[in-house]
Amino acid sequence: MNSADLEKGLAKDEGGRRVGVPSTALFTDQYELTMLRAALRAGTAERRSVFEVFTRRLPEGRRYGVVAGTGRLLDAVENFRFDPDVIGFLREREIVDGATLDWLADYRFRGNIWGYREGEVYFPGSPILRVEGSFAECVLLETVVLSILNHDSAIAAAASRMSSAAGGRPLIEMGARRTHELAAVAASRAAYVGGFDTTSDLAAGFRYGIPTVGTSAHAFTLLHDNERDAFQAQVDALGSGTTLLVDTYDVAEAVRTAVEVAGPELGAVRIDSGDLLLVAHRVRQQLDELGAVNTRIVVTSDLDEYAIASLAAAPVDAYGVGTQLVTGSGHPTCSMVYKLVARAHSADPKAPLHAVAKKSLGGKTSIGGRKWAARRVDAEGYADAEVVGTGPVPAELLDRQLLVELVKGGEVVARESLDTVRDRHVAARAALPMSAIQLSRGEPVIPTVYM
Amino acid sequence: MNSADLEKGLAKDEGGRRVGVPSTALFTDQYELTMLRAALRAGTAERRSVFEVFTRRLPEGRRYGVVAGTGRLLDAVENFRFDPDVIGFLREREIVDGATLDWLADYRFRGNIWGYREGEVYFPGSPILRVEGSFAECVLLETVVLSILNHDSAIAAAASRMSSAAGGRPLIEMGARRTHELAAVAASRAAYVGGFDTTSDLAAGFRYGIPTVGTSAHAFTLLHDNERDAFQAQVDALGSGTTLLVDTYDVAEAVRTAVEVAGPELGAVRIDSGDLLLVAHRVRQQLDELGAVNTRIVVTSDLDEYAIASLAAAPVDAYGVGTQLVTGSGHPTCSMVYKLVARAHSADPKAPLHAVAKKSLGGKTSIGGRKWAARRVDAEGYADAEVVGTGPVPAELLDRQLLVELVKGGEVVARESLDTVRDRHVAARAALPMSAIQLSRGEPVIPTVYM
Repeated sequence: MNSADLEKGLAKDEGGRRVGVPSTALFTDQYELTMLRAALRAGTAERRSVFEVFTRRLPEGRRYGVVAGTGRLLDAVENFRFDPDVIGFLREREIVDGATLDWLADYRFRGNIWGYREGEVYFPGSPILRVEGSFAECVLLETVVLSILNHDSAIAAAASRMSSAAGGRPLIEMGARRTHELAAVAASRAAYVGGFDTTSDLAAGFRYGIPTVGTSAHAFTLLHDNERDAFQAQVDALGSGTTLLVDTYDVAEAVRTAVEVAGPELGAVRIDSGDLLLVAHRVRQQLDELGAVNTRIVVTSDLDEYAIASLAAAPVDAYGVGTQLVTGSGHPTCSMVYKLVARAHSADPKAPLHAVAKKSLGGKTSIGGRKWAARRVDAEGYADAEVVGTGPVPAELLDRQLLVELVKGGEVVARESLDTVRDRHVAARAALPMSAIQLSRGEPVIPTVYM
Repeated sequence: MNSADLEKGLAKDEGGRRVGVPSTALFTDQYELTMLRAALRAGTAERRSVFEVFTRRLPEGRRYGVVAGTGRLLDAVENFRFDPDVIGFLREREIVDGATLDWLADYRFRGNIWGYREGEVYFPGSPILRVEGSFAECVLLETVVLSILNHDSAIAAAASRMSSAAGGRPLIEMGARRTHELAAVAASRAAYVGGFDTTSDLAAGFRYGIPTVGTSAHAFTLLHDNERDAFQAQVDALGSGTTLLVDTYDVAEAVRTAVEVAGPELGAVRIDSGDLLLVAHRVRQQLDELGAVNTRIVVTSDLDEYAIASLAAAPVDAYGVGTQLVTGSGHPTCSMVYKLVARAHSADPKAPLHAVAKKSLGGKTSIGGRKWAARRVDAEGYADAEVVGTGPVPAELLDRQLLVELVKGGEVVARESLDTVRDRHVAARAALPMSAIQLSRGEPVIPTVYM
């Protein structure tokens, strides 16, 4: 066995080579299956139900959230099947009974999913996703739906703030080494949604087509007998348009050597330590004096949105961001929950839906009922409220509704390209009041209004 | 294509079913490959090299770190192969040249890896992992090695603090919904290493054999016409030893109903909201009055190590921890780096190694040379220093060395069971000065001494 096994399932083909099992069904908390088991036995499993995903609050001080992961979520729903390996595991562990195993073996989601479009912004109470079908088929999806949306939206929200702060300068995602190797791939994708331009992560390039970049690390300089040899080796292989890393020894000397080796057509230099504001100014001046007026300066040292903003007036041409991006800049997860908001009183598919909600004290209550949502705008077209309701949609909000059909009768009906999603986020953010892009702590930039 | 593709590679078998590609080679920053390309061309790629993984500091206020992920890392090294799909991608993107592609197609790691045993504690400067071989074969592993160690060690460190705080009461990992779906599986594993007992994550049970638990959520109660029906359905299916969730409506009424339905042999009740200290006392008293003296109380509401500690005097029998565990309780990643510390001056395999280190200003310097490490103990056998050196190992520290051989000539030689690792962590933590398990902020509990 090896770490790739889970990713591919445990089956092996005849040659002993592991064979992929395209199942996401085990990315699931056990209680989803024990609830199913009990509901099947009680005759309540087929009651028509509506689950919704929402957050009770944004991370402290944040002014908007960013929906990300929808594309991954649709893939996960499609691949949520209990194949023989998975059934065998559940049987062996006696997690559910035989009747439940039979039901699971035939399972695929056949219901409907509506949701905010990926890249859209959201606020407390926004019904980001609505899953409709039998209780049984919907409850099973809870864990993987939340895993994907909570992770990807957290990264996209941080990326969005960083891209505002960067003011159009390119942003490079380079956090793979700071997070789980597959979370890193999803983080690259979410960062792209939030406005990043490129990634260092080859797997993200392979899987999602995101442009990849990267040239060299300090180890490459240290490998060679001196910095000049290292720079020469890099330019020989990658051309003078490459990016040379200039802070292994002395920055000023390295910049001089870099331009000597690559010529004034040197593509870029990278600075990865020190006082970036000061060093960038010095390096720019030195590059200009050496005639390398088009050589760009890339900075990459524990940046977050605040550090990026503080470099707005510095002669920096691109930012590489790692740790703070892939950890959500202080908020590595969202607090999205997946709650039953309505269900029928019987298994009759025509039985009407009734709103349900937890009522215990302690702050974890929720609002029952199947919801719509719309973004109300002011006279200038800027958002002024997130309107959420359970009754009829007011006429003036009909064309401002936020939920679109993603899955219909179990079939995915709304696949989009990542570039479409990325463009949508730019547009959605631009339609918020200007204070949305302030980095300082504040309240959600528009209120959520229930009607 | 779907989200499971990356996990399995993109190849499909004749039936269109995706086939696993057991490769971890793309969990890699592009610059590892461009450095390889340049070094191959310059003739420096085969220089014998030593890379080490270490941190410059612990997360603020933490007193020790926990090594976790070693088992996953060894799997990743074994599966780090450039199969035709991967080679095709690199060729298409023109990330490296033909000579480099040929080299990569034959690649497997043939060097040596030494490291701290998984579950061991570490401190700033501890050489947690040492990778030895040619520059080319070692540099490629940087990204995936750091992804795994940085993620898993962060979770294990949080888990270790929580398990100290729990003082022997069982801990349930239930954070899958708060992190990437595959990071969740690694997080379950790391939590187990750090002292957790069970997980809600079925994939972690499937992949690593960790015991899984879970019974029901609020949705199950809300699905039924009343709480009694829900409890009856659950007990009918899962038996009276199950755990009933008692905070959907009124806790006192739910506890009364639960014992009526399940009898005094009810396994446990779970409380997921409210003032847990107060509610746990009330529920315990009520259960005792109802004769359910052996019914346990499980609490699960945004717990972290501090909340767990604050419940030490409460009648709580088990803790379920989610968000704060899988996000490292404020520190979702470690700051481990992978640095070239020594290399030969020529490609001659017998050429001697020379220490190398980055020397630029700005705090990111490191100490060159191939290192050993040992944990010095005081007269009572408690650790009193982490001793790290590049010269000969002093006689009195010979049998206290921390680095063991993990990979020899490319073959993994040190696989261990998770239970072995988990036991080791308990022992390693117990050998630290008592102040190690204080939750308050402090300095590393022992100093790192260089010699």
